[in-house]
Amino acid sequence: MSPGDSIALYLDDLHVGQRFTSATHAIDADEIKAFAREFDPQPFHLDEQAAKGTFFDGLAASGWHVAALTMKLLVGGGAPFAGGVIGAGGEFSWPKPTRPGDVLQVTSEVLEITPSRSRPDRGMVTLRSETRNQHGDVVQVLTAKLVVPKREELPSP
Amino acid sequence: MSPGDSIALYLDDLHVGQRFTSATHAIDADEIKAFAREFDPQPFHLDEQAAKGTFFDGLAASGWHVAALTMKLLVGGGAPFAGGVIGAGGEFSWPKPTRPGDVLQVTSEVLEITPSRSRPDRGMVTLRSETRNQHGDVVQVLTAKLVVPKREELPSP
Repeated sequence: MSPGDSIALYLDDLHVGQRFTSATHAIDADEIKAFAREFDPQPFHLDEQAAKGTFFDGLAASGWHVAALTMKLLVGGGAPFAGGVIGAGGEFSWPKPTRPGDVLQVTSEVLEITPSRSRPDRGMVTLRSETRNQHGDVVQVLTAKLVVPKREELPSP
Repeated sequence: MSPGDSIALYLDDLHVGQRFTSATHAIDADEIKAFAREFDPQPFHLDEQAAKGTFFDGLAASGWHVAALTMKLLVGGGAPFAGGVIGAGGEFSWPKPTRPGDVLQVTSEVLEITPSRSRPDRGMVTLRSETRNQHGDVVQVLTAKLVVPKREELPSP
């Protein structure tokens, strides 16, 4: 899959090992600070000077901002599932900080597909999504369980 | 700990089982839609009418919006750690949708405290944070690993 492809995949269309690549998002200092003011007002996310000498030693995006931008990239074609990108939960890590000027891109891989026993019209897909910056450094790993619908079967004649 | 207490706890001050309660945040439909337009533009997060008949069957906040608001509540006193709330990773789930009008509050518990072997000035704290609405329903469970500094020791005389 490449960015720009506009298709909607059902559970039936997926296989373990299938990979997707998102579009990109360039993040700047104003965005980092605006998100931080609203959701994560800590010095290392708010101000270049105040960020010096902190754990991050320089302005860094809130991890939740990276997570939200990853979702934007998944919804925008990085996870082209029918019914949308609907998460039930998962795991995440932020191995490196995200800095002003970074260009983020998400590559995802289907790890597991589990048809629902109680709801035959859907299943759960485990998707591992790595968010990388322009240097290829992984800034977030997200392994999420997503609800994906099955293709509707036509009624038998 | 109660909302409004303004203290900063070091690793030395924490014990397993210690609990904290955040302030509250009331979420409205405009906020839900604004976050969704920027980060998660799917019909069930954008528009009441379009949300009918979807998985959520009505307008619901993006899970990442709930995560970001949980962080706001943790940073605002719900996790009063010296050095701030600095996450390295963790696990999350969204057992129930968050709806317009919900009033969110976070209760957290220290599950584990691990002093760093390589960095004697800090340690890792595993914190389980449940975000509840005004009915007491848990809308998010976040178990995160946080970096917390040790109190600086005075040099020996």
